[in-house]
Amino acid sequence: MTYCVGLRLNKGLVFMSDTRTNAGVDNISTFRKMVSWHRPGERLITLMTAGNLATTQALVSTLDERTKVPAERNPSLLEAPTMFQAAQIVGETLRETIQQNRGSGQNADTQFGATLILGGQIKGMPPRLFMIYPEGNFVEASEDTPFFQIGEAKYGRPILVRAYDPDMDFEKAAKLLMLSFDSTLKANLSVGLPLDLQIYETDEFAPKLERRIEADDPYFQTMTVDWADALRGAFNSLPDPVF
Amino acid sequence: MTYCVGLRLNKGLVFMSDTRTNAGVDNISTFRKMVSWHRPGERLITLMTAGNLATTQALVSTLDERTKVPAERNPSLLEAPTMFQAAQIVGETLRETIQQNRGSGQNADTQFGATLILGGQIKGMPPRLFMIYPEGNFVEASEDTPFFQIGEAKYGRPILVRAYDPDMDFEKAAKLLMLSFDSTLKANLSVGLPLDLQIYETDEFAPKLERRIEADDPYFQTMTVDWADALRGAFNSLPDPVF
Repeated sequence: MTYCVGLRLNKGLVFMSDTRTNAGVDNISTFRKMVSWHRPGERLITLMTAGNLATTQALVSTLDERTKVPAERNPSLLEAPTMFQAAQIVGETLRETIQQNRGSGQNADTQFGATLILGGQIKGMPPRLFMIYPEGNFVEASEDTPFFQIGEAKYGRPILVRAYDPDMDFEKAAKLLMLSFDSTLKANLSVGLPLDLQIYETDEFAPKLERRIEADDPYFQTMTVDWADALRGAFNSLPDPVF
Repeated sequence: MTYCVGLRLNKGLVFMSDTRTNAGVDNISTFRKMVSWHRPGERLITLMTAGNLATTQALVSTLDERTKVPAERNPSLLEAPTMFQAAQIVGETLRETIQQNRGSGQNADTQFGATLILGGQIKGMPPRLFMIYPEGNFVEASEDTPFFQIGEAKYGRPILVRAYDPDMDFEKAAKLLMLSFDSTLKANLSVGLPLDLQIYETDEFAPKLERRIEADDPYFQTMTVDWADALRGAFNSLPDPVF
């Protein structure tokens, strides 16, 4: 499993992903699930992946090679004229990657699937955030649905739904994501530390912050304890029902 | 889908279940998922069900008939000498019910499945709480794992994990369950109001309280709004990370 969240704020975009992959609880590994391409001053495109690791690694390698090898430069994420077309490129590459695996040998409908969050900005246009399905099609975040979760989304959803505010600053957004991940980490062993965080501020065309939050991160450790206390305090502050 | 929780407290047991059943989002109905048998002064046994509605209704009817029809009185939940044996009776009846459906016509491994929470007390012994699987076997709640959830358990789990305390009184426990259900109701349309609540106090051998919480319940409505505010307050009270 995996847990990744992409938030659309008025100030920009925030991405967080865990790093645990597993083939059964007796076989866990750490892999980065967030990758970012940028051309300073012109564009930043960030991708997070959930699903079959062979699929997502092949996808990222294919996309990455196209940005580097001139002969395979087309279609490259660094050349896509809009974020919509970038999402189309990623969706199509994902579909091709899944099809390649399906065509050869073992066949299983969902086994090679992956779901993605793609966000970023290209100069002259606002930042955009997409969720891309294994079928290669995608939806875009809007004011009504300003964030996307992929992977183990349920445990961490209640706090996102209640505390998200499009006007929040990046520090608060990072705190919100860490709380959402904390709830998930506590409940599902297949989501694990360290976490990757990227903050993107509109019109900067480069990451404002890239940070790996390790298990011994002092802020994360304190926050986990403080949050449990704050939650219990909030719980106790509500009036009890009278029967 | 469904959401049911059974809590084991030092003072007794608390049960809560939703009432929504669905065969697709375009076909939803309201059915009670909590049933209780008691013999005043001697025993109380409460059952909550999640899964195929035909299976769970057949199960409850079979168990209920055995408590009423003398000829089929054996094995009856009202005659079981211990809660462990009551759980065995329910588990075996569940397995038989699933098998009967499997044997006739359409065959699907999980289609007829159901998962149950069974709790109660028989005079001379402490209250006990079990979770029963579709295979008919079961596990018992303990100090380490003092509550069970069945159905859509993920959204409502974080608050249970953090605010549960075995010493809490019944009012607080009811509040905790309502909050856990509130998170779930907000996220999954297949869990719906009204909610059924039963509170059982140790050595009373009758329900202390049975209450249906409707959509217009004033406490539940106020609590939902207050909780969103309290959560945001708790969120804001935590220090932000410094980058």
